[in-house]
Amino acid sequence: MTDSLAALKTRLADVHNLHMAEAVLGWDQQTYMPPGGIAARAEQSATLSKIAHSLFVGDETARLLQEAETQNDGLPADSDDARLLRVARRDFDKATKLPEELVIETARVTALAQEEWAKARAANDYAAFAPRLERIIDLNRRKAEALGYEDRLYDALLDQYEEGMTCRDLDPIFAELKAATMPLARAIFARVDSVDDSVLRQPYDEGLQKQFAEDVLRDCGYDFARGRQDRSVHPFCTHFSRGDVRITTRYQSNDLQPALFGSLHEMGHALYEQGVDEKLDGTILAGGTSLGVHESQSRLWENLVGRSRGFWQHYFPQLQQTFPAQLSHVAAEDFYRAMNRVEPSFIRVEADEITYNLHIILRYELENELLEDRLSVADAPAAWNAKMQEYFGLTPPDDAHGVLQDVHWSMGAMGYFPTYSLGNILSVQLWERALQAHPAIPQEIEAGRFDSLRGWLHDNIHRHGSKYPPRELIGRAAGGPLDIKPYARYLQQKFGEIYGL
Amino acid sequence: MTDSLAALKTRLADVHNLHMAEAVLGWDQQTYMPPGGIAARAEQSATLSKIAHSLFVGDETARLLQEAETQNDGLPADSDDARLLRVARRDFDKATKLPEELVIETARVTALAQEEWAKARAANDYAAFAPRLERIIDLNRRKAEALGYEDRLYDALLDQYEEGMTCRDLDPIFAELKAATMPLARAIFARVDSVDDSVLRQPYDEGLQKQFAEDVLRDCGYDFARGRQDRSVHPFCTHFSRGDVRITTRYQSNDLQPALFGSLHEMGHALYEQGVDEKLDGTILAGGTSLGVHESQSRLWENLVGRSRGFWQHYFPQLQQTFPAQLSHVAAEDFYRAMNRVEPSFIRVEADEITYNLHIILRYELENELLEDRLSVADAPAAWNAKMQEYFGLTPPDDAHGVLQDVHWSMGAMGYFPTYSLGNILSVQLWERALQAHPAIPQEIEAGRFDSLRGWLHDNIHRHGSKYPPRELIGRAAGGPLDIKPYARYLQQKFGEIYGL
Repeated sequence: MTDSLAALKTRLADVHNLHMAEAVLGWDQQTYMPPGGIAARAEQSATLSKIAHSLFVGDETARLLQEAETQNDGLPADSDDARLLRVARRDFDKATKLPEELVIETARVTALAQEEWAKARAANDYAAFAPRLERIIDLNRRKAEALGYEDRLYDALLDQYEEGMTCRDLDPIFAELKAATMPLARAIFARVDSVDDSVLRQPYDEGLQKQFAEDVLRDCGYDFARGRQDRSVHPFCTHFSRGDVRITTRYQSNDLQPALFGSLHEMGHALYEQGVDEKLDGTILAGGTSLGVHESQSRLWENLVGRSRGFWQHYFPQLQQTFPAQLSHVAAEDFYRAMNRVEPSFIRVEADEITYNLHIILRYELENELLEDRLSVADAPAAWNAKMQEYFGLTPPDDAHGVLQDVHWSMGAMGYFPTYSLGNILSVQLWERALQAHPAIPQEIEAGRFDSLRGWLHDNIHRHGSKYPPRELIGRAAGGPLDIKPYARYLQQKFGEIYGL
Repeated sequence: MTDSLAALKTRLADVHNLHMAEAVLGWDQQTYMPPGGIAARAEQSATLSKIAHSLFVGDETARLLQEAETQNDGLPADSDDARLLRVARRDFDKATKLPEELVIETARVTALAQEEWAKARAANDYAAFAPRLERIIDLNRRKAEALGYEDRLYDALLDQYEEGMTCRDLDPIFAELKAATMPLARAIFARVDSVDDSVLRQPYDEGLQKQFAEDVLRDCGYDFARGRQDRSVHPFCTHFSRGDVRITTRYQSNDLQPALFGSLHEMGHALYEQGVDEKLDGTILAGGTSLGVHESQSRLWENLVGRSRGFWQHYFPQLQQTFPAQLSHVAAEDFYRAMNRVEPSFIRVEADEITYNLHIILRYELENELLEDRLSVADAPAAWNAKMQEYFGLTPPDDAHGVLQDVHWSMGAMGYFPTYSLGNILSVQLWERALQAHPAIPQEIEAGRFDSLRGWLHDNIHRHGSKYPPRELIGRAAGGPLDIKPYARYLQQKFGEIYGL
C-alpha cells in the first residue's frame, strides 16, 4: 500500500468515526434522550456533521486522493483498494459540490424537525410542521442543484440512496408495478372480507411480544452480543460498527403485527450490517451498498420468510404457547391468511405486500411535485388524500394517518421512498437465486433453521459491504439486472391462492 | 462583543460539542452498548478526542484568543466574557502543553481499559489489568511532565480536577482529617456492634427500590424532563447540556443502600449541572467549576440530607409502605442509626462518613507512590492491603475488594480521589451557611420540602457554572477558605451521639 493511500485511509477513518459518533447521538435521541436535551443535541449533531464534512472535503483529502489514484493506477479492478478509491472519489466529488453552509443548516434543521414532526403527528397538527417541511424541501432543492442532474431534480436526490438510479429508470418500473398490482389489488378489495385478521388484533402482552420476537431474531441469526433492540416511535436499524448493529421496534398492546414483523424487517437490515467482512469494518466500504439492496434484505426476512406458511409451521405452536388465550383455538392456516390480509389502508409501514408499493408510488409522485414546485406545502395534505382516494378508494381520517405519517421528510430525506419498492422487487430475485443454490431452504425454514439462507445472503450480499455499486452487486448476486417479473409472479401466486383468484 | 471574541466563542462551541458527543458515547458505553461494540467505540472516542484537541490547540485558536484578550482588556473583571477568556486561556495553555499523540493514546488506552477493568474485577484477576494500569500510570507521568509542576508530579494531575490545589495544601488538610477521624473511628470500632444495620440488608425488590428512589429525586428537585436514571456497573453523573443531565445507579436486591444513597449522591451532582445558568450553557463556562465543589453537592445531598434524622422523619413512613414486610416492625430511630453505622470496610463507595476519608487518604498516598515509582504496579495490591490493615485493621479477601475496586484508574484518572474528601469538608461549610440564610431548612426537610436548600445552593453555587475558580467560589459561597473545623465538628457531634461517645 502506498503512503498516500495509507494516509488517505487514516483520514477517511476519522471521517467515518465522526459519522458513527453522529449515529450514536441519533440513536440516543430516538430512544432514551430526555425532552430537555433536544436543542443542544441539534447543535452537537450539527458540529459533528460540519467537521466530518470539512475534514472530508479539505484540500488534504483532495491531494491524498489524487496521489493515491495515480500511485494505484495498476491495481486489479476488483481489489478492495481499487474499490475503496472508487467510492472515495465518488463521495468526494459529491461532497465537494455541497456548500459547507448547506450541510450545517441541513443538520441543524433536521435535528429539530424530527422532534417537531413527532409532536405534530401526535397532535395531528400539520400546520405546526408545515414551515419546517417548507425549509426541508428548499434544502433538498438546493442540494439537488448543487449535486447536479441531467433530467430531474429528483435524480440527484435518489442517487444518494441508490447510486445510478434515475426517474427515467424508475418510471417504467413503477408503471409495470402499477400494472401488476392494481388489477390484483382491485380483485382482492372486492373480496377483502374473505380473510379475517381479527386474531392478530387482540390484547397481546408487550413483554411477551418482546420475548417472542427476540427468540425468533436469535434463531434467524441476529447476534445480540453485537446488537440490541430498543423502543422508538419509528422503528429503525443503525450501526456504529459490525460489532454494534442496533434495531428498534414499537409495540402495540392490541396488535401483534407491528413489533413482530417490524422486528423481522429491521433484523433483515441488521444481518446485512453484522455480516459485512471484518476487513471492511471502519472503512468507507463498510455498510450496505444502497438502500434498495438494504431493503431487499429487510423485506426478504419480513415477507418471504416471516409471512410464509413454512415459517409459521415451526413458530405458530410456540406462539400459541406464548399466547394460549388468544391463539389456542386458531388454526395455523387461518393465522397465515390473517397476516397476509390485503386491504386498502392508511399507514405505509403496516401495509400488506400488495398495497405497500402503491403507498410508495404515491410518495414518489408527491415528492416530485413538491420539489418541482408543482405542488405547494399547504396543498400537500389535500394532494395526498386525493391520491389515497385514487389508489385505495380511501380518505385518511386525519393528517396523522396521511401526510404526517412518515419520519423521512423530518430527517431531511427526500428521494428515499422508491428504494423500498426496489427492495421488494429485488428480494424475490434473490430469494429465487438462493433457492436454486439451496433447494432445501423451504424445508429448513419449516424446521426453524435459517443457516443456508443466511449463508447464501452473507456470501452474495452481506460480506461485500459497499464494495460493489448496487447495479454490479445485483448483477452478481441475482444473475442479471433488476427484474420485476419474479416479484409480480410471486405476488400473483401467493395472493391469488389466498384469495382464490 | 468584538469579532474575535465572537469567532473564539464559535470555535470553543465546536470543541465543546465534540466533548459533549464524546460524553454521549461514554454514557452509551457504560449503559447500553453491546459487548461487540467496544473496539470500534474506542476508535470513535479517540477520534473525537483527537479532533477536539487539535481544533482547540490550533493556531487559529491561539490567534483568536490573543486578539480577543487584547480587544477586551477593559472588560469588568467579573463579567462573563472576562471570565470566559480567563478559562479559555488557562485551558489553552494546559492543552498546548499536551502532545497530540499523548491525548490520542490516552483516549484509546482508557476506552479499552474500562472494559478490561470491569472484566478483571468480575474475575478478581489483577494480573489481567496490571499491564494496562502500568500504561495508564506512565501516561499520567508523561501528562504531568508535559503540564509541568513545581513540587510533585501529583500537583499537575490534581490541578486538572481542582484548580490551584497542590500536595502542599493537601498534606496538612489530610493530616488534620486523620487527626480528627482516626481517634473517632477507633472509639467507634470498639463498639461497632452497638449499631445494627441488618434491616438494610434484607431482600428488597429492585423495581420498588428504583421507584422509591425516583420519587425522592423528584421531590428534591431533579428534573426528569432534563435527565434520566439508568443502570451501570459504577454509578456516575454525566451531562450533555443543562437540558440533559443523566445519572446512573446500581441495584442490589439484598441491600437498600447502594441504589438509595447512590441515587442521592449522583443527584447532587446532577442538580449542579441542571442549575447552571442558561446563558452559560454550551460555553466553556458550563459545567461545575471543580470536582471538589461538585463533590460537595453530591455529599451534601447524600449525607447531610439523605442520612439525617429529619429527612427520614418524612420518608421513613413512605419507605415502610413500600416495603412493609421488611420495615413495618422497625423504629425510625433504628433505621436512622442503621444507615449511619460505622465499620471498617473494604469498599469506598459504600463506606460510612467516618471511614470514607481514610479510603481516600489511602489512595492519595498510593497514587503518589506509584507515580513517583516508589511502588511498582506488581506490588500495588500488597501495598493496598497493608494500608487497609493500618487504617482499618482489615485485609481485603481479594483484589476485587481491594486495589481493583475503583473505575477511576481505568478511565485514566489519577489525582482525582482527593476531591472526594475536599467535597466532604466543603459540604458542611456550605450547609452551615445555607442554614444561616434559611434557618427553617431542617424543618422543611422534615416536611419533605427542599426548595430553600436547593435555592440557596443554586444561587451560590450551581448557577455560576465554572465562571469562578474553586478557591474564589468557595470564598464567596462559604464566606472564607476551605476549613476543616465545621466538618470535624459535624462528625464528632453526629457520630458521638449515635455511639454515645
